[in-house]
Amino acid sequence: MTFHTFTETRLRNFTKSVFLKMGCSETDADLATDVLIRSDLRGIDSHGVARLSGYIRLWEKERINATPNIRVVHETPTTATIDGDAGLGLVVAPFAMKVAMEKAAVYGSGWVAVKNSNHFGIAGYHALLAVEKDMIGISMTNASPLVTPTYANERLLGTNPMCYAFPAGKYPPVVVDMATAAAANGKLEIAQRANLPIPEGWAQDKDGKTTTDANALKDGGSLLPLGSDKDHGSHKGYGLSATVDILTAVLSGANYGPWVPPFVAFLEPSANPVGEGLGHFFGAMRIDGFRPATDFKNHLDNWIERFQNARTIDPDKKVIIPGEPEYAFELERKVKGIPLVEAVVKDLDTLAKKLRISGI
Amino acid sequence: MTFHTFTETRLRNFTKSVFLKMGCSETDADLATDVLIRSDLRGIDSHGVARLSGYIRLWEKERINATPNIRVVHETPTTATIDGDAGLGLVVAPFAMKVAMEKAAVYGSGWVAVKNSNHFGIAGYHALLAVEKDMIGISMTNASPLVTPTYANERLLGTNPMCYAFPAGKYPPVVVDMATAAAANGKLEIAQRANLPIPEGWAQDKDGKTTTDANALKDGGSLLPLGSDKDHGSHKGYGLSATVDILTAVLSGANYGPWVPPFVAFLEPSANPVGEGLGHFFGAMRIDGFRPATDFKNHLDNWIERFQNARTIDPDKKVIIPGEPEYAFELERKVKGIPLVEAVVKDLDTLAKKLRISGI
Repeated sequence: MTFHTFTETRLRNFTKSVFLKMGCSETDADLATDVLIRSDLRGIDSHGVARLSGYIRLWEKERINATPNIRVVHETPTTATIDGDAGLGLVVAPFAMKVAMEKAAVYGSGWVAVKNSNHFGIAGYHALLAVEKDMIGISMTNASPLVTPTYANERLLGTNPMCYAFPAGKYPPVVVDMATAAAANGKLEIAQRANLPIPEGWAQDKDGKTTTDANALKDGGSLLPLGSDKDHGSHKGYGLSATVDILTAVLSGANYGPWVPPFVAFLEPSANPVGEGLGHFFGAMRIDGFRPATDFKNHLDNWIERFQNARTIDPDKKVIIPGEPEYAFELERKVKGIPLVEAVVKDLDTLAKKLRISGI
Repeated sequence: MTFHTFTETRLRNFTKSVFLKMGCSETDADLATDVLIRSDLRGIDSHGVARLSGYIRLWEKERINATPNIRVVHETPTTATIDGDAGLGLVVAPFAMKVAMEKAAVYGSGWVAVKNSNHFGIAGYHALLAVEKDMIGISMTNASPLVTPTYANERLLGTNPMCYAFPAGKYPPVVVDMATAAAANGKLEIAQRANLPIPEGWAQDKDGKTTTDANALKDGGSLLPLGSDKDHGSHKGYGLSATVDILTAVLSGANYGPWVPPFVAFLEPSANPVGEGLGHFFGAMRIDGFRPATDFKNHLDNWIERFQNARTIDPDKKVIIPGEPEYAFELERKVKGIPLVEAVVKDLDTLAKKLRISGI
């Protein structure tokens, strides 16, 4: 595959110009840009600028509102529900996380459910906002239905990610940021491009049979929950995905299950929605609401060291601390730039022409 | 296997007499009994009275304090850390959940980390306390190290369960109550007794090789995280288990990772503990902190119906709503009694003789 490498600044400038052309305010364009670029910096290429033309297509269909009136519609001292007014999830989510953190600053914790939003980028971005303030950050979203519950042959759940982020002392934050499916759709797409089979346990075909065909999803099949099959705990992956769906959407008043609006603009949202847009859920807890932050960080450093030094099966493969690979990517790409596959570069240049802005 | 069936009342009376003999107060004996019996009622036989003699052995070793001074040692309006004073987790956990719920009643949410505790029974019991008050209940605990992180060949994590419980309207609560390992140790024990192999993906042997030997754990092997191997997302199961370990222990000041004291009395706790006892974490959020409880329940009912009516692969296998099987067990066993395998009955009779109380 051919890659072209761009400096962070160049990608930021281009991305911001796209959001400005969409009609976003300066502040919102900066924020949305920051979420996407951070994803590319952290090596999660599927959720960075590669998605930019997808957001534009939703905006063209008037399914994204570039100038939303994001507002709290219900609250207690430590909980709130926010209406995202069909705004970019990239803007709605940091707004909601900020509300959670403000509540946590005063009362120890803050919890915000969001309805009427759109795709929010990487869950880790939002959870890490709390970590900067010595809080534990939690972030979840539901997503377009692609995953079948155990025993079913129907796409009823998204890959519904959950993220927990914890501040450490001398080490980077521990960030558990994971789809609740066995494998996210991006992994199938990589296998499709390379014309390779996928491992059994990632997907089932349209008849519900286990398959190694990377095109299974395109051909009417479903992704499988984490655990893959009942024997290996797929009911647990399904349960986690259900938890995310309930916290993000049943609690907020967003669409849930098969009613979640698809990210791709060529699929229409349900004609009979059960809520508004898609849903997120955020939490922030002050570490010093439980014990002094330095004590927590010292012990988390100790935890990290113990796991890093674990005896491994293959001496060349160390135990990975959650969040460590993304942090390493971020350090490297800030210096060396961000590589984009040629197909993404072409897509962004086409987008630039369509929007009559300078190319990437 | 031979089973003997007991009425709920008979099992309660016997169990309470054991806890009273241990020196628990009337109230604590009732509470600990309720946690164990509810586990048996709900069909989670591995965590009910079958564990009673295990608790006694820990008490005999003075690792369980029958008359603990359970107290809040740190708090904000919505967060607290509790010192369980080495009490029964069965007593400490409901105390902590009550603190979380009291905070939630006033401020919308409440979050409690617990140190210096012991095994707390089923996570679902504690989370369901919140559901009775129209709150979302969350409950987690760390546990004796049996699970290896991805790539490692060392038991560094417990089966570390997490539970989320949600009140529905006309249906029983949705309760996601799951170990974060591919399979809990109880499932290996069942295969051992039946002299059957286990599926690949549940355990690795002492050399870190995949195995179908149900005795792998006894022979120095490890359980695998949910996901089983890297290709199928074991790093996610490991990440979830790490999240539970950090929330329950690094946050509270309990022991974490390989330092968690073993449940079995014949294994000594670490000579160099990094904290006190084992750790729990509880959360309660008022539903009406986000939207009116009736709206939430109506939509959760709708969610449940949609999933119950999903198209399935095998027409005889319906999609299971998390918590539904346990609820069905509870209805049935309240009427028909609780079946115990003969080995457990004998174990309880031996216990009775040792404690000089009436047999079961």
